[in-house]
This record gives sequence, C-alpha cells and structure tokens, in this order.
Amino acid sequence: MTSMKPYAFGIDIGGTTVKIGLFSTDGTFIESWEIPTRKEGEGAMILPDIARAIMKKLKEKGYAADDVEGVGVGVPGPVFEDGVVNGCVNLGWGVLDVRGQLSSLLGGMRVEVANDANVAALGEQWRGGGKGFKNVIMVTLGTGVGGGVIVEGKIVAGAHGAAGEIGHMTVNHHETIPCNCGRKGCLEQYASATGIVRKAKELLAASGKASCLRSVEDLTSKDVFDGAKIGDEICLQIVDFVGYTLGTALTYITSVTDPDVVVIGGGVSKAGQILLDAVDHHYREEAFKPAKNTAFKLAVLGNDAGMVGAVRMVISN
Amino acid sequence: MTSMKPYAFGIDIGGTTVKIGLFSTDGTFIESWEIPTRKEGEGAMILPDIARAIMKKLKEKGYAADDVEGVGVGVPGPVFEDGVVNGCVNLGWGVLDVRGQLSSLLGGMRVEVANDANVAALGEQWRGGGKGFKNVIMVTLGTGVGGGVIVEGKIVAGAHGAAGEIGHMTVNHHETIPCNCGRKGCLEQYASATGIVRKAKELLAASGKASCLRSVEDLTSKDVFDGAKIGDEICLQIVDFVGYTLGTALTYITSVTDPDVVVIGGGVSKAGQILLDAVDHHYREEAFKPAKNTAFKLAVLGNDAGMVGAVRMVISN
Repeated sequence: MTSMKPYAFGIDIGGTTVKIGLFSTDGTFIESWEIPTRKEGEGAMILPDIARAIMKKLKEKGYAADDVEGVGVGVPGPVFEDGVVNGCVNLGWGVLDVRGQLSSLLGGMRVEVANDANVAALGEQWRGGGKGFKNVIMVTLGTGVGGGVIVEGKIVAGAHGAAGEIGHMTVNHHETIPCNCGRKGCLEQYASATGIVRKAKELLAASGKASCLRSVEDLTSKDVFDGAKIGDEICLQIVDFVGYTLGTALTYITSVTDPDVVVIGGGVSKAGQILLDAVDHHYREEAFKPAKNTAFKLAVLGNDAGMVGAVRMVISN
Repeated sequence: MTSMKPYAFGIDIGGTTVKIGLFSTDGTFIESWEIPTRKEGEGAMILPDIARAIMKKLKEKGYAADDVEGVGVGVPGPVFEDGVVNGCVNLGWGVLDVRGQLSSLLGGMRVEVANDANVAALGEQWRGGGKGFKNVIMVTLGTGVGGGVIVEGKIVAGAHGAAGEIGHMTVNHHETIPCNCGRKGCLEQYASATGIVRKAKELLAASGKASCLRSVEDLTSKDVFDGAKIGDEICLQIVDFVGYTLGTALTYITSVTDPDVVVIGGGVSKAGQILLDAVDHHYREEAFKPAKNTAFKLAVLGNDAGMVGAVRMVISN
C-alpha cells in the first residue's frame, strides 16, 4: 500500500460499450465514462481505443503515466490466469493476450485481466453485497445465469478460465427442452429471466387457475415477482420453484468453497427480498450443517460492479 | 525460499495415531514415525505429546529448534483460517486454538493448521495424483465421502472451515433411507464404501440375476469392483451407478473452481482404472464444455497424503 502510485483505472468491456473508471489507489472513485465497443475487424480496435481513452484522460487531468498504479480489465469471455483471453465471440476476439497487448499500448503499464462475471463478483465483494467478507460467491441472474467465485479476497479463475460457470449445471435430468448450450436441464433454464418467463407460460397453459399474469402481454420475470408480492397463486408457485432450484444448486456450490456470503445480482435480483427469501428457505432445508449459516445478500453495485471489481484487481494488496 | 531454515515437520492427527514426518525444507522426506493419539481428558494431551515428540526428535538428530522452518498439522475436523479448530469429536476437542497452543508448546515455532481432508488434497496436489497442477479437487471415497479444494496451490478453508465438504450434497431427492448426517440422499450414501455395499445388497435382493456377489459373506466395495472387472452384470451395474452419481456431482463441483485435475482417493479408489473410467464417462456426458477436459487421476500417496500436505503448508513459497 505504501509504495502505490496515486491512480488506477477499472475497465469493463461490454458488447456495446466500454465503461472506464478512474480511481485513487486508496479506492476513491474519481470519475467514469463510456466509449463504444468497436467490434469491426475482429475487435482489433478495442484495446487501442481503450489505451487512447486512458492516455487522453491522463493528459486532461495533468497526470503522468507514471502516476498510474495499473489498469484492471473485465472481459466477457474466459480468461486464463496470465491475462490471455480464451476467445470472446461477443467482441470478435479469438485467443488474445489482452494483458500483454494493452500493457504495450500503455507503455508498459501494469494490466490485470479477468472474466467479467468474476470481476463483478470481486466488485461486490469489495464494495457491494459482500462487503466485509473475504469469501464470496456471486450469482448473476440475467438473460442467462453466471457466477463468480472469490476466495480470500481474490478471483478464482480456474484452469480453463471457467470457474463460477454455474449456469450450466444440470439440475433437472428430466428436461426435454434444450438449453442455449445444447444440453438439457441447465440451471439457466430455470433461474434466468428467460427461464422464469418460460416456466410462467408453461404453468399458465397447464393450469386453469386465475392469475394476474393472464392479462399481461409481454410477460417478464418482473411481472412474476410483482404478482407474487400481491399474493397471486401462480406467481407464488413460480417464485417458490425458482427458490427451490437455485437454493438446491447453491447447496452444491457452497459445499465447494464454503463462502461467508452468496451475493445475488443481475436483472432478476431487482425482485429483492422476495427472491432472497425463496432461495434462503430452500437452501437452509437442503444445506449441510456447517454451511447452513451462509448469508444471502442482494448485489448493490448494478452495472458498476465490473468497473469497481476491475480496479480492485490492481489496488488490492 | 532463500531464507528458509533447513527442516520442517508434517503432522497428521488421526483418531488412533498421530503420524509425524520430518522433512528438509527443499521437500526431501527424511523420516516418519507414529505416536498414539491420547484422547483422554478431552484430548488435552495430544498437543503436548506432539510437542514432546518433535523436541525429542530434534535432540536425537542434533538439530536446534531454530533450524525448524515450521510445523504443519492436519486435524480431523473443521479448521478456521487462523488455525483454530471448530470442534473435533474424534479427538475430544471443542473449539481449540491449535496453532497458538502448539506454537507456544514449541517455543514460538511457526505452526499452520488445516482440516485433514484439505491437507491430504494439498499433499496429492504437491506430490501425488495432482502433481504439476495448481488447481486440484480431491475426493476421498472411504467409509464416508470427503473432499479438499486447492486453488493456486493453496488450501481453500472456507468461511466455516467446511470447504470441500462434498459428501453431504443431496444428489437424490427421492431417497427414503437417512444418511449418518440425518438428512437423505447425500452423495456419501452412494459413493462411499458403505454406500456401494448397501447398493449391492439392494440390487441382489431386488434382482433374480446370478452374481458372483451372492456367494460372498462379508460383502465389501472391493468385491463389487473385482466382480465388475470379470464382467459380473450386477457388479457392472453398481459401478456404473457409482460413476453416474459421482460423475454428475463432480460436474457441479468443478463448475465452481474449474480445477485442472480431480484426484480420487480413499479405500474405494483402490479399485483403480475401472472406477476412473466409470466416473470419467458420466462426467464428460454431463459437463459444460469449458470444464469437459478436466483430468481424473487416482490418488497415489495413500495414508501419507496428510503428512506430506501438512509439511507443504509451511514450506510452500
């Protein structure tokens, strides 16, 4: 800590925009901005664009390159421990040495790279739902289901850059409809926003029960949780099913690293306490004693989690 | 590495004996011996006995206490990161500061403490089935089912000292017979030596098929694997079932930390390649793509894994 340079950047590369944050190395947020993600030409311009944006900001602020402790980067694909990205379809990248290339573009600045779900987990552990705890598992429930694993305040990357890839655990061996991954019965098919809507439609078709969902045109997972909050029976049934599926999967997941806290984020988590309660209830029924006290928290950083976690990679001691 | 003192001890505390190993800090094994585990008086003599054995050995060898880099200890119970044991029924211990107490008894020597399954995993990662890999999950199939998780060459202890406690994952929600833990459908009920024998007896009773097992008096899991090796149909069916149950559970487990290799140890693993093949087959059918290449290996250190892993805790750099 004593010998750290004063500034650092946290960067979250998304499919549409790159979010860049400037921080003091004591962790204070200074400012953030976005630049477009130019995916043309196999994404060859993405890293030069980022380097240019950083150098421009330094000039604007009157900081020297040597005032920068480092640059942390979150990438939407698997990343090996050495900062090499193992292909990233969303950005047009094949195998790419992001750490090495970005560092060269920045005149040898220190660069750390990790998968975006893992980086978001680190952000939530440091400043969000997992604040105060060193061992965190983050589950992101969005269009898909992702996750990140933090042990002793550090990202677990995994041998194939796939640690925390929990969305494709087979939780239902009787499923007949395939998941996006081609297999059947993945957690993602039940606990993602898409999965919740699918389940709702199935139940509405199979049941003759009245439900507030029947009058909704473009059904979303939010409608399901909203209905459950006002006591709609079909909605309550779906929320309980999501809680059961995710809660059970989490007993498997927590038995591996035994985290202090599980942080639930992503669009579906906006449902709030009703989701936590449903997961918590089934988790405690199923969990082995030593891990029964694992806490469940909502993510709090939203879209900033990636940027915040990214800078953390270069300013943790 | 450069400033390391020349010697270190690795200690594996079991319910009957304590195994003590003397090593050079370059990792060379010098000698090992055992002392009885005196459990009387809530196990109050265990740590003084160990300290006395170490001091006696140093005297015998003509080494000074200051020649010892440290003492690593594996304990059959949950251990927090600070070396405090969170109760250990087998030894009569309640919550006990093993690191602090043993260090005091040894005049301030460095002591590191971890759970025995985790320590065995570290031993196998360093010198055994996981040699050459930094990210290892070890599964121990004995009377029960245990596990240990190694990330970047270090033990993952967990927030409640319960990381790697995979034996009580509920893998069968339809089980009617309770596990030792009081719950139903735990992995341990199917993949332990006890579980394999139970399954064999069930199948023999339910099926009219001929089987070499019918003439065996005290059926063991070894009989089942031996039968499978000579093509006995009932035995093959059981081995396939064990492979399916464990292989599926391992897809959940590997999705969390994404290890390079899964090491399978414990008495059941003496079955050898036929067990690995059964697990491997079902694992690859169920695993999500990025983790499909995880290797499966047999443990090689047997009862020495604990002692070897214990010393590793104080001589890894």
